[in-house]
Amino acid sequence: MNVVTIERNVLAKNDELAERNRQLLQLNAVFCVNLISSPGSGKTSILERTIERLKGTRRIAVVEGDVQTDIDAQRIAEYGIPAVQIVTRGGCHLEANLVAQALEAIDLAVCDLLIIENVGNLVCPASYDLGEAHKVVVISTTEGEDKPLKYPEIFRRASAVIINKTDLLPYLNCNMAVLRENILSVNPHVKLFETSCTTGGGIDIWCHWLASHGGTQ
Amino acid sequence: MNVVTIERNVLAKNDELAERNRQLLQLNAVFCVNLISSPGSGKTSILERTIERLKGTRRIAVVEGDVQTDIDAQRIAEYGIPAVQIVTRGGCHLEANLVAQALEAIDLAVCDLLIIENVGNLVCPASYDLGEAHKVVVISTTEGEDKPLKYPEIFRRASAVIINKTDLLPYLNCNMAVLRENILSVNPHVKLFETSCTTGGGIDIWCHWLASHGGTQ
Repeated sequence: MNVVTIERNVLAKNDELAERNRQLLQLNAVFCVNLISSPGSGKTSILERTIERLKGTRRIAVVEGDVQTDIDAQRIAEYGIPAVQIVTRGGCHLEANLVAQALEAIDLAVCDLLIIENVGNLVCPASYDLGEAHKVVVISTTEGEDKPLKYPEIFRRASAVIINKTDLLPYLNCNMAVLRENILSVNPHVKLFETSCTTGGGIDIWCHWLASHGGTQ
Repeated sequence: MNVVTIERNVLAKNDELAERNRQLLQLNAVFCVNLISSPGSGKTSILERTIERLKGTRRIAVVEGDVQTDIDAQRIAEYGIPAVQIVTRGGCHLEANLVAQALEAIDLAVCDLLIIENVGNLVCPASYDLGEAHKVVVISTTEGEDKPLKYPEIFRRASAVIINKTDLLPYLNCNMAVLRENILSVNPHVKLFETSCTTGGGIDIWCHWLASHGGTQ
């Protein structure tokens, strides 16, 4: 029972720090999304396509969360935008205090859009507010239609869900109608996007939503 | 700092309970594997194919771990074998005490092979011994070659890795040589399998390994 209490304290402390991050971002008119998915759903690829589309009109910065390695920050840095890697060394989710440290390394005065790529995990990132304006969940068509029912919390807390890897649909046993229905059954108010980073399909619509929600346009 | 200490206590307690599970399973000559992967890598499908192949020669039981729903246990129960569902209600991994409770619901005297399907998560399940003989990681070809480097702990602790969804290789940007190399770079002693639950490819070889490691053949 002690553990439950302690977990609650940890979450309360996290929420407090997240609120500080949120205020700092709002003060600087930075729109922030927290990208969450299973490992391998294509978060980094979506980030790359998003940067390609929006780089000319938005000043973007990225915070990468990984258990080990800075592979993702290296991929992002190639686009010539600020990228900070948080290595959690075993931690299965980002926390607000880690993001606060990352924010110190970014010049927020010259940033419009901050994208945080969380650790690949559909469970714990749901509980940890980072100070973002919106949580966005990425699910790939290869993962099966039942995932929104099996990991409802993260879908419930998301403002948008991107169904990625739609180019693989002809080769999969994935019923898109059922997948969409399952997502909407746990969160009827969520915005749904369908993308393929291979063909580029759907990226424009997603980027339009993202850009239109920023604070400084 | 308190949190770190408490986490250590939790793990020490878990290890103690896992050891009890291990002894109970050994006493009953039950071979036990702990199946771990990201959500949607195909653990349940591999389980289904495995049950189809081994059902005639091995008395199999299954423990299913999920955050919500008993969808997986229902799928397994259709094969007419004992299936116990653990619903963690937000917990991102199985723990030894939950498995101990599940074992009470299984008649171990008439069981040769127990397969535990962990919660879909590549991070925390690595730290929680359940009393299994071997950890087996499933990674799908759709997840990208870098996952063993980004989630090294789970690959390091595995006795075997199943690379699943090989039927999708013609449609993916997945370099199997690099994926295998990355797995072996973090764990040179791991046994590698390649499977497709759609075509059935590789299932025989995996099942042969599984059956030959059981205690009662």
